[in-house]
Amino acid sequence: MSRVYNFSAGPAVLPEEVLKEAADEMLDYKGTGMSVMEMSHRSKAYDTIIKEAEADLRDLMNIPDNYKVLFLQGGASQQFAMIPMNLMKNKVADYIVTGQWAKKAYQEASKYGKVNKIASSEDETFSYIPDCSDLPISEDADYVYICENNTIYGTKFKTLPNTKGKTLVADVSSCFLSEPMDVSKYGIIYGGVQKNIGPAGVVIVIIREDLITDEPLPGTPTMLTYKTHADADSLYNTPPAYGIYICGKVFKWLKKMGGLEVMKQRNEEKAKILYDFLDQSKLFKGTVRKEDRSLMNVPFVTGNEELDAKFVKEAKEAGLENLKGHRTVGGMRASIYNAMPKEGVEALVAFMKKFEEENA
Amino acid sequence: MSRVYNFSAGPAVLPEEVLKEAADEMLDYKGTGMSVMEMSHRSKAYDTIIKEAEADLRDLMNIPDNYKVLFLQGGASQQFAMIPMNLMKNKVADYIVTGQWAKKAYQEASKYGKVNKIASSEDETFSYIPDCSDLPISEDADYVYICENNTIYGTKFKTLPNTKGKTLVADVSSCFLSEPMDVSKYGIIYGGVQKNIGPAGVVIVIIREDLITDEPLPGTPTMLTYKTHADADSLYNTPPAYGIYICGKVFKWLKKMGGLEVMKQRNEEKAKILYDFLDQSKLFKGTVRKEDRSLMNVPFVTGNEELDAKFVKEAKEAGLENLKGHRTVGGMRASIYNAMPKEGVEALVAFMKKFEEENA
Repeated sequence: MSRVYNFSAGPAVLPEEVLKEAADEMLDYKGTGMSVMEMSHRSKAYDTIIKEAEADLRDLMNIPDNYKVLFLQGGASQQFAMIPMNLMKNKVADYIVTGQWAKKAYQEASKYGKVNKIASSEDETFSYIPDCSDLPISEDADYVYICENNTIYGTKFKTLPNTKGKTLVADVSSCFLSEPMDVSKYGIIYGGVQKNIGPAGVVIVIIREDLITDEPLPGTPTMLTYKTHADADSLYNTPPAYGIYICGKVFKWLKKMGGLEVMKQRNEEKAKILYDFLDQSKLFKGTVRKEDRSLMNVPFVTGNEELDAKFVKEAKEAGLENLKGHRTVGGMRASIYNAMPKEGVEALVAFMKKFEEENA
Repeated sequence: MSRVYNFSAGPAVLPEEVLKEAADEMLDYKGTGMSVMEMSHRSKAYDTIIKEAEADLRDLMNIPDNYKVLFLQGGASQQFAMIPMNLMKNKVADYIVTGQWAKKAYQEASKYGKVNKIASSEDETFSYIPDCSDLPISEDADYVYICENNTIYGTKFKTLPNTKGKTLVADVSSCFLSEPMDVSKYGIIYGGVQKNIGPAGVVIVIIREDLITDEPLPGTPTMLTYKTHADADSLYNTPPAYGIYICGKVFKWLKKMGGLEVMKQRNEEKAKILYDFLDQSKLFKGTVRKEDRSLMNVPFVTGNEELDAKFVKEAKEAGLENLKGHRTVGGMRASIYNAMPKEGVEALVAFMKKFEEENA
């Protein structure tokens, strides 16, 4: 067995010790005589798994008591509909469009009410975060929506938008648990887990209780009503049980590592190694405005498509996988989530140096 | 490591060799240097996994070319809304209510149009399948809906209803791949995989192409539109990738076992051992009308609640797990899906005999 450094944007690298534990427990979870995959979601053993997962997440993020934690399915894409269907009392919402996923969320919400694009960075291929200190927030906006870290473009909101008192809803899929957040500033924080937490097929929604309504828009499916899941502690129907179990292991790993303050330091240290190299390189260039750079996703280019392709190919041969950038940006992208060790980033930079010398 | 005989109704027992392979591949899938959990769903390795899964399922079920196979999320409960939202052109549908899940499907569909309960067995705690040879099918019905095997009550349609030419939609969650089916008799066959195929969090939908519309009911979320997933070969957004990988392994296991004809024989043989014992027992009694008995779920009672509880407790101590019946039926239920070996059923019957002698 030989593990590569996996820079995939998602699904993405997971902590090796989590995978080892999962493998060890595959046929017999803690003396139950069965795999977690085979276990009734109503059993005592599974009840402990899901309750501990929630408690550990609450602990890690310091989630206030007036927020519910939901483990759901359908990915962020399903939340794009679920959010307006549940929150649009006035049928008005304001969207800040900083990338493809925010744009898709905006388009989907437009099915359900008057949706305003109050800011965008599409004019420069989403390579920056617009100034959101004084936006034209709608007076009757049910919420203001952002995608806090933009996986494809490598930008991150360093300051939250001034919502002028309106509820903030944030997709944090690609920065989930990468650093501490003040949950109380948000109405909803949600994200697919497949980037920084666990296997694809689980989406975590952290929602302030007053936003959980039993009167969503007419025609909202029972399964797309937050109240359904909030009332049943995420066990209205069979949850994605195995995925939640892996998420729970990652939460325990994060606690053991020292929590989110420590992860932030580690992530800053890792990102600095890569950004510092990019800033002095004569061959490689970061594509994002410096002050908006993500700690998680780092796009870069050589400016020459053939050279980009050569780089991706040779990096793969050197055990540095999934460095090809998204087609809308081109070039390369290194996703360096929590589970990417510092050694992986160092190996990448060493390879980039060598490549630069060889291709000068 | 010691494995129990797990009679859970779902999530449920999986083939031991599938779990062993998954454990072996957890840190390095076939030399890729990563877990399937960490793998981009757009990668070549994953493309092979999902394409082979689909091809093997098509092969096993002999699925005609004019049907699409979709790997989705949200469980059967989400299909309860997705079906009417996509199929209700005339806003009329007929439901045959043979259990709690059919009833929930009926209730959810009622949000979207005129839904007729054209038959029901609720009058006798769903212990039988009504005669469906000449039902009052609505002239403008968009479809006729059944739950083909009723997990809680242990009944199964042995003959499909006469839909008088209307499209048949069937939830087969708890009999999926337990025996051959003639797919061409259905418009949609769907089921959560967590009973007979894989880990919770994947639902498989087999849909005839002419039913895939780009004009679902107004307000249908993009993620709840079959066309979204059909056009993208189930990769519109990140799928529940690890779950699909396990399903694929189970499909290969089923093919190796000899396919669905062989599984049917095995399942009939297993069920006969249990039903034959029930039919001669002086203590235990099956709860279902004989001609409607399921091969997968076998509910039985002693008629004495205390004795039932004692049985469940002592069986558990003997390594026979999850035999408690659903609260609406009481007593016991043994779910004996594909992956339950004959030895498990024999062990259960031996234990029942012993219990009967001890408690005569």
